[in-house]
Amino acid sequence: MIVRDRPHGLQLFFTLRGSVLPHIAGKLATCTVLALLVTLSHGVLYHSKITLTSVPFTLIGLALAIFLGFRNSAAYDRFWEARRLWGDLVHRSRSFARQVQSLPLFDKPVGPEDQDDPRRLLMLRTIAFASALRHQLRGSDCNADMQRLLPADEAAAMNASTRGTEFLLRHMAEDLGALVRAHKLHPALAANTDQSLSAMAAVAAGCERIKQTPIPFAYTLLLHRTAWLYCFLLPFGLVDTVGYMTPFVVAIVAYTFFGLAALGDEIEEPFGTLDNHLPLDALCREIEVSVLDTLGVRDLPPRLAPVDSRLT
Amino acid sequence: MIVRDRPHGLQLFFTLRGSVLPHIAGKLATCTVLALLVTLSHGVLYHSKITLTSVPFTLIGLALAIFLGFRNSAAYDRFWEARRLWGDLVHRSRSFARQVQSLPLFDKPVGPEDQDDPRRLLMLRTIAFASALRHQLRGSDCNADMQRLLPADEAAAMNASTRGTEFLLRHMAEDLGALVRAHKLHPALAANTDQSLSAMAAVAAGCERIKQTPIPFAYTLLLHRTAWLYCFLLPFGLVDTVGYMTPFVVAIVAYTFFGLAALGDEIEEPFGTLDNHLPLDALCREIEVSVLDTLGVRDLPPRLAPVDSRLT
Amino acid sequence: MIVRDRPHGLQLFFTLRGSVLPHIAGKLATCTVLALLVTLSHGVLYHSKITLTSVPFTLIGLALAIFLGFRNSAAYDRFWEARRLWGDLVHRSRSFARQVQSLPLFDKPVGPEDQDDPRRLLMLRTIAFASALRHQLRGSDCNADMQRLLPADEAAAMNASTRGTEFLLRHMAEDLGALVRAHKLHPALAANTDQSLSAMAAVAAGCERIKQTPIPFAYTLLLHRTAWLYCFLLPFGLVDTVGYMTPFVVAIVAYTFFGLAALGDEIEEPFGTLDNHLPLDALCREIEVSVLDTLGVRDLPPRLAPVDSRLT
Amino acid sequence: MIVRDRPHGLQLFFTLRGSVLPHIAGKLATCTVLALLVTLSHGVLYHSKITLTSVPFTLIGLALAIFLGFRNSAAYDRFWEARRLWGDLVHRSRSFARQVQSLPLFDKPVGPEDQDDPRRLLMLRTIAFASALRHQLRGSDCNADMQRLLPADEAAAMNASTRGTEFLLRHMAEDLGALVRAHKLHPALAANTDQSLSAMAAVAAGCERIKQTPIPFAYTLLLHRTAWLYCFLLPFGLVDTVGYMTPFVVAIVAYTFFGLAALGDEIEEPFGTLDNHLPLDALCREIEVSVLDTLGVRDLPPRLAPVDSRLT
Amino acid sequence: MIVRDRPHGLQLFFTLRGSVLPHIAGKLATCTVLALLVTLSHGVLYHSKITLTSVPFTLIGLALAIFLGFRNSAAYDRFWEARRLWGDLVHRSRSFARQVQSLPLFDKPVGPEDQDDPRRLLMLRTIAFASALRHQLRGSDCNADMQRLLPADEAAAMNASTRGTEFLLRHMAEDLGALVRAHKLHPALAANTDQSLSAMAAVAAGCERIKQTPIPFAYTLLLHRTAWLYCFLLPFGLVDTVGYMTPFVVAIVAYTFFGLAALGDEIEEPFGTLDNHLPLDALCREIEVSVLDTLGVRDLPPRLAPVDSRLT
Repeated sequence: MIVRDRPHGLQLFFTLRGSVLPHIAGKLATCTVLALLVTLSHGVLYHSKITLTSVPFTLIGLALAIFLGFRNSAAYDRFWEARRLWGDLVHRSRSFARQVQSLPLFDKPVGPEDQDDPRRLLMLRTIAFASALRHQLRGSDCNADMQRLLPADEAAAMNASTRGTEFLLRHMAEDLGALVRAHKLHPALAANTDQSLSAMAAVAAGCERIKQTPIPFAYTLLLHRTAWLYCFLLPFGLVDTVGYMTPFVVAIVAYTFFGLAALGDEIEEPFGTLDNHLPLDALCREIEVSVLDTLGVRDLPPRLAPVDSRLT
Repeated sequence: MIVRDRPHGLQLFFTLRGSVLPHIAGKLATCTVLALLVTLSHGVLYHSKITLTSVPFTLIGLALAIFLGFRNSAAYDRFWEARRLWGDLVHRSRSFARQVQSLPLFDKPVGPEDQDDPRRLLMLRTIAFASALRHQLRGSDCNADMQRLLPADEAAAMNASTRGTEFLLRHMAEDLGALVRAHKLHPALAANTDQSLSAMAAVAAGCERIKQTPIPFAYTLLLHRTAWLYCFLLPFGLVDTVGYMTPFVVAIVAYTFFGLAALGDEIEEPFGTLDNHLPLDALCREIEVSVLDTLGVRDLPPRLAPVDSRLT
Repeated sequence: MIVRDRPHGLQLFFTLRGSVLPHIAGKLATCTVLALLVTLSHGVLYHSKITLTSVPFTLIGLALAIFLGFRNSAAYDRFWEARRLWGDLVHRSRSFARQVQSLPLFDKPVGPEDQDDPRRLLMLRTIAFASALRHQLRGSDCNADMQRLLPADEAAAMNASTRGTEFLLRHMAEDLGALVRAHKLHPALAANTDQSLSAMAAVAAGCERIKQTPIPFAYTLLLHRTAWLYCFLLPFGLVDTVGYMTPFVVAIVAYTFFGLAALGDEIEEPFGTLDNHLPLDALCREIEVSVLDTLGVRDLPPRLAPVDSRLT
Repeated sequence: MIVRDRPHGLQLFFTLRGSVLPHIAGKLATCTVLALLVTLSHGVLYHSKITLTSVPFTLIGLALAIFLGFRNSAAYDRFWEARRLWGDLVHRSRSFARQVQSLPLFDKPVGPEDQDDPRRLLMLRTIAFASALRHQLRGSDCNADMQRLLPADEAAAMNASTRGTEFLLRHMAEDLGALVRAHKLHPALAANTDQSLSAMAAVAAGCERIKQTPIPFAYTLLLHRTAWLYCFLLPFGLVDTVGYMTPFVVAIVAYTFFGLAALGDEIEEPFGTLDNHLPLDALCREIEVSVLDTLGVRDLPPRLAPVDSRLT
Repeated sequence: MIVRDRPHGLQLFFTLRGSVLPHIAGKLATCTVLALLVTLSHGVLYHSKITLTSVPFTLIGLALAIFLGFRNSAAYDRFWEARRLWGDLVHRSRSFARQVQSLPLFDKPVGPEDQDDPRRLLMLRTIAFASALRHQLRGSDCNADMQRLLPADEAAAMNASTRGTEFLLRHMAEDLGALVRAHKLHPALAANTDQSLSAMAAVAAGCERIKQTPIPFAYTLLLHRTAWLYCFLLPFGLVDTVGYMTPFVVAIVAYTFFGLAALGDEIEEPFGTLDNHLPLDALCREIEVSVLDTLGVRDLPPRLAPVDSRLT
């Protein structure tokens, strides 16, 4: 995610960090060169003048506007729902840690040194859950984080499992069940903590849904095909009206259409590490700090700060 | 569902898998041939020149844009809500299995070998529920799956019932009631597990709603009629301006309109097995693997992988 | 609700069932005749030529597009929310029946013959609730259905009450309270069943909201007035450009505008019995079959099937 | 709220009740007179011909369409959310009354004559809550209603309090607490009734939110300024094309723009007593009748009926 | 937040308070001066006439409308969701205070003088929570407010913590746990109050989400770049049609585009203290008054009133 002030003046035109311009530079060049050729030949192809006028572009533009507008909203909705799910995870992790720390049938709160207290492990697993989900969504290896957070044997078992997030929730549920059995947790409150676990499972399932189900492929095809046809034909429609400004106008139009399409492509799958993706590292750190603070740890790790205006 | 990377360059124009082009090829050909005839006759019909200019198309285009934009959003919302419901089913199935496995008043977790333990059957029925819902939505026969998952008599009874998903939930509720009666389940936690069952029932009712209630038929009529009239008349409006490019422009305009309409027709009812439908097989397998993993099964079946870029 | 396959080819233009064409035939004829008169007089009114060109229609069209687009979305949202509420009722009825059937403190399930078992009556009242709500929304008489489902005295009292749905929920709540008092129902589970009743009350209140609060009347006025003015004036704007095609173009434009407006009028209040209204009869039957199946009835009534492509 | 059938034919153009026309008559007249002056002078101002053509209006119209469309949706969403909140209040009031009437640990239901039964007062306070909220939202005096519904001392205290709705909920919560203390209410069911109170508090907070937070003032400025500029300049853009029809076209365009803006202004704050505002009186009466019916009152007051097509 | 009546007549054009005009005055001047220069040179740049006509602006306008419309909706949704979250906090704070005040196992309500009663501190912390969240969102120092509301040692500890809102919730949860342990709070009701705390944590996480995750930076770039290019080029497109009115038209178009963009920039991050931001001070005061009233305080502080039409 790009975190920076809005650029002003000329700076606005020369900012590349976070811009989609680099991703569409090739397409833009293709369209502009083609427009240049058409302009130089005055729209004549094989001795035959091709006249399109602006009318067809108004008509096709109608459909294109629907595609682009819809596509853009759908992509942003995915981005924002993903962020909302992770915001929910932040709040659920904190609430679960708070619930565990304030369980009424224990005499005193658990601290970071109480190695044998099941509450300590329940909290650490909350951190591990967020971390495992992040690695799963990004396709990276969660082993180092698990080693750091969990007991050695559990980290090994977790590593062997192909379903890390469920593995952790299950172990948390088993420990809570053991607490009920040991009369350390009222059933009515156990239902409450179990709902926190279910909410965390809902976040994981929601993120999987966004990751695994792209906007139907046919949209992408329809949108990109129409945008390409539009930009290829546009010079023939403009050259008789705006003359040698044609390549310039085509470049701007292509910039807006391909820019919007490329931005949609990027934020449609928001869990990666591109410029406009979600800062999952920072969110996991936020969860870790919150839970460790609840556990009573003194030296909390710092929040992640943007590097070169960029938060991962 | 089509799972593939975005095609680049010329490949973009020759991809048929997942495209709506095959579905609208007939309509496109009709429109283009008609436009060709109009162009060859210079818009003269029965010795009388028909001049339309582009003005009527801008006016009709206004209404058509509203139809297409609305229709498209409504269809995609149905698609995405259906996916959301199944995502919810994934999470509820996992949570229910976790709740059953961690019920506090049992001494130890249930395993795949504990044939007589009611918890084992509760979990298998969770898998069967997803499977039965899938078969119901696709109109296929669930008998093989039920035989595989349930005890022989229950599978037979299930097969005889016309209301499979409710049958399963009812049996699950009865077993949970028996556990409460046997003091193996606290009432407060029973309320919690019952809410999981209700959530699964809500998924089934939501899917039925989408399947049984199409977008009102009058929209379909209005949209298709207007689109056809528009494309039939368009050559008369263009021929005086763009000349022999008319069939080409008509083809592109028809492609965008009919393409969008056809895509809407396809994703409006997302439970089928067409290219852009939801991968219910893969989702059922996901649920099965999750629940079996919770049950302690070692040799988990693999996740389904796309065949020829296609996940069913 | 119209349930039929999408018509193809010429059939598309001659389908009347489910179409809004019959509702707007008069308006269409008026506009077309007027356009014909204007065309024949070449736009001259009282010896004075009225020239409008297409410019005003582009400007007014802007506002009209906003009205139509908004109106259409708002109407469809009401339609779909109403369907969602009834889908919720389906699921809540099933879940309530399941909860009642699996109450842990009874020794065995209740059957259709157990006249004195309070659980049987609780289930029948669930069916009666859906039926009473349907009759209330459609303004029809629910007496026959109540006689069929409830004990004679309760049916009579219900008929005397002006608030049928609340009457039923209250009796259900009283019976559940009596079960708690008789130690047949845990309070924690009673809270759970009471939430099912509240959810059914929420459905009833939601349906009343949609029925009693139309889209503000001023919208209807603004929309219809603007559409009429637009179509009345359109011939003056077109006659100089498209000549004798004017009535034809006006007819198409009027068809799209009035068609969209009429469709909005129809689905805005979706509880009636018009072609595009919700199939409340079929939904009530669905609820009835579900609950009777849970009660253990063998000879279940069939699902309602469309008559002449139409489900009521 | 206007409750009437859709007017037909000429009646459509002469309906004033519920129309925004009276609110914008002055603006319309101003614009039309100005357009008349411009038409008479053929667009010449101080000997200098001002030519605008329609191009600028297409460009400005783009932004204006965004403003108007957005503003309109935002205003309607507020209207509909307000209605939804009151619909929720209807259902919560009924459910709370039902819960109170069926509290399991009382031997028999409470009736209207049981002056000392705390359940009777709990129900009456439910009615008072809706009434107090209505008076608060409309800035009217709730004293008469409180005197009618509550015991004299509580009505006096309520009147002295500046926070009437919270006062009532607090007294209801205290009485429920006393019932728990007196072993007349299980804690698990007390949690259930408390959630009903919280839901009523949520309705009050939601209504306050809508009332206190208008759409940001800058939107109103931007929208009205642009609309005025547009309509003032429009005659200069039209006079050369449509000649003496200019004032007529300007009047229609101004009618659509100002009409939509005025309608937005009206429904944006839906709690007043204007034609298109919500019928809070009727909704309060509905709640009162529902709760009194639950309490067992025989002579229920009638539902409010529209007076001159208008429900307040 | 600006709280004032809608200005009328000429006043509409001279209102600056709450307007975005001051923020975009520089941009407007730049565009207008440029347009003036182009007009004076009749569109000739370096002896070469640049003709653009209005066609390119219609095409680019298409994309610009999508950007502006989307951006505007997304920004307003953030604004309104933020207000909704704070409205939720108002209701949750009131409900939590009500729950605490009516806990059944205490003999009498707590008052402002009962320094040792844990319920008094629970309520004060509710006020402190809202205040701490406000300071966190605005980056201001919460120490004075904490000193005022909390015991000295807790205020000091709170000040030392970097995670103030979580600190408070944790202390509230611990006190509730102690009440359960002391048999002053039923576990079933404890689950209920804990849900209130979780809801407050959800508000905090939601506000953090809005504050920390701006609309993706690439949108801002794309939108501002296109708007600038559009306004820079517009004079070349208009000068041949509207002549010396060009600078005036450009100024209006630039006003609408930059005005909408600037308004989006402002309300996108609604927690600041600009004119169109949310009145967090007033909302915190509202919460404080509500909770103190529930605690039984007589001399309640007044609600905050707008200063110079402005509520902070």
